[in-house]
Amino acid sequence: MGFVEKVRLLDYWKIQDSALQSEFPRSRLVLMVDRRLLVTKDQPDVQMVELSFDDLKQRLGEYGLQFDLSNSCLLDALSTDVDMIPLFGTSIDAADPPEDSPISKKEVLKQLGNSLGGRFTDIRMAMLTMREERQRNLLAKFQSLTKWASIYRRCPKCAAALKMRSSKSGAECVTCQRVYYPTFSPVSITLITDPTNEHALLVRHRGSAGGVFTAVAGFAHSGESMAECARREIAEEVGIEVDSIRSLDMSQPWPMPDSSLMIAHVAVAKIDQKISVCPDELETAQWFTRHQVKEALTTTLADPLLKNLPRTLDDRQTLHYIPPAGAIAHQMIRQWVDGKLENHNSRI
Amino acid sequence: MGFVEKVRLLDYWKIQDSALQSEFPRSRLVLMVDRRLLVTKDQPDVQMVELSFDDLKQRLGEYGLQFDLSNSCLLDALSTDVDMIPLFGTSIDAADPPEDSPISKKEVLKQLGNSLGGRFTDIRMAMLTMREERQRNLLAKFQSLTKWASIYRRCPKCAAALKMRSSKSGAECVTCQRVYYPTFSPVSITLITDPTNEHALLVRHRGSAGGVFTAVAGFAHSGESMAECARREIAEEVGIEVDSIRSLDMSQPWPMPDSSLMIAHVAVAKIDQKISVCPDELETAQWFTRHQVKEALTTTLADPLLKNLPRTLDDRQTLHYIPPAGAIAHQMIRQWVDGKLENHNSRI
Repeated sequence: MGFVEKVRLLDYWKIQDSALQSEFPRSRLVLMVDRRLLVTKDQPDVQMVELSFDDLKQRLGEYGLQFDLSNSCLLDALSTDVDMIPLFGTSIDAADPPEDSPISKKEVLKQLGNSLGGRFTDIRMAMLTMREERQRNLLAKFQSLTKWASIYRRCPKCAAALKMRSSKSGAECVTCQRVYYPTFSPVSITLITDPTNEHALLVRHRGSAGGVFTAVAGFAHSGESMAECARREIAEEVGIEVDSIRSLDMSQPWPMPDSSLMIAHVAVAKIDQKISVCPDELETAQWFTRHQVKEALTTTLADPLLKNLPRTLDDRQTLHYIPPAGAIAHQMIRQWVDGKLENHNSRI
Repeated sequence: MGFVEKVRLLDYWKIQDSALQSEFPRSRLVLMVDRRLLVTKDQPDVQMVELSFDDLKQRLGEYGLQFDLSNSCLLDALSTDVDMIPLFGTSIDAADPPEDSPISKKEVLKQLGNSLGGRFTDIRMAMLTMREERQRNLLAKFQSLTKWASIYRRCPKCAAALKMRSSKSGAECVTCQRVYYPTFSPVSITLITDPTNEHALLVRHRGSAGGVFTAVAGFAHSGESMAECARREIAEEVGIEVDSIRSLDMSQPWPMPDSSLMIAHVAVAKIDQKISVCPDELETAQWFTRHQVKEALTTTLADPLLKNLPRTLDDRQTLHYIPPAGAIAHQMIRQWVDGKLENHNSRI
């Protein structure tokens, strides 16, 4: 089956609850338990563990756990020898063991992970370290739809119940018939360089891991073009004005803390401007030389899970790492280090 | 006051209801009545009419109409000689005149428009024909926030009341404290060319004006990059596969029918593929030569309000016009006609 047929089949499954219901028992599924993702044991090339419906039902049943279409969302259509079957993401909560249980919940989940051929991990760490773009984008969809479906229970306009589609791709008000769709907002993520293109301005977010610096990012507001969004976010977050902004041909869905689509830009700003960071969001913002950023890139590639993060306060404000390879910021910074992001052809 | 200070002042006003309330009487305002926009009388260079608070209050009062902060949204900060004042968008409904009234509502609104130094017009037509990007983007914000604020009255999670910010930039649930923000979704809009770059595939949307052809567009779904969105939308809408996709450095907020941010792309597809349009969305999709598209561009520029649209059915399916100059599709198609969109450097 070709790409066009696949796309149109997904479109059909999204809105036809009964068709999706009848496909469910022959589907394949990826799993979250207590908002932790089941991934393969191999490091560092992490993938989601994909299970058959029957396998998942049996293994979860051994732990007293159940799933159904109501806690699953449609992620993709997969080819078999003869036709296509759905790929679902299923998200369940594990009950706490009784207080007098000899075994902790953590241990139970570890055993469950083993039984399912994998282990449970933090979603953000999975996003940052999964090598395949397809895996990251499926996880972004899984997390976004799961969170959206958990919130959209009542119509924001009339407060009546919303009837959620089985695919979790939309929900309709039973009273006023208004349809709501899972939303995610465009975010500009911008690498700021100086006019010589030998320096980059990187920032450390409040609460982020120590020593990790990244590009300036922020949600677009109503009525802004992406270039206007990037220009405003830079003014808000680091207090400087840029001379030009250019979009790159890179974007990435990102599901945390809110669902977004990160769209990459480069901007040029004079290096002698006074930086004034927005204290609500940032701890610091600094200009670095290409050599300094290259060293941080090397450190990050050698320690992709950021296991040697600095602990002391002073060292936390020093550039040691950039985000891991799964983040679009990593790809942008890497291209700049490699001299692939030129300053020309820019506009505002 | 510089750009950084302006951006931070707007950020402050957005969340500080009491500060915005005290600024309201010295603000300037643009106006919608019954969802029609007050614009200048001049054709074709249409602008929104901007009024002082006192002027608007007096003129509306003469027609028995009122406004306040509750039906206004914060659009911008404007410089005065000494400081900055807010620009609001105010949207009110006019009551129907009594049944035995000698004068129709349409006539009343015409007189009101005159009294306010302008005329009321359709929002879509204003978006399509306003020359200044700033005016179009402010209108997109005005329409998006007004519509959003009219829908988000109750918490989708717990159905309790939402407390709307005066700026209309967010609303907080009085019970669960969850904050909701006005959302708009990324849309890919893609000009499809053949490998020779001498032909473009344009489509006519169901229900759109006769003879007007444009680029393929559609909302991004959760978990898609913009390139993946463009590729899927092309498969869904016209049933063909593309060999490469590249983003352009152009984007435009667009408020109708739902709020979106249009992001421009070009794609290359083989011309001998069978086109199969999605009948729910499109009436037709056809390949045109650069010369044919150039003629439609010329017709559109000579008749920017599309006054000579074809009426007969056959002629409706023939390329006469492209969208007017206010639409990003117009800019993309124009660049292609002028030979400024090259095929190289593309990827998928």
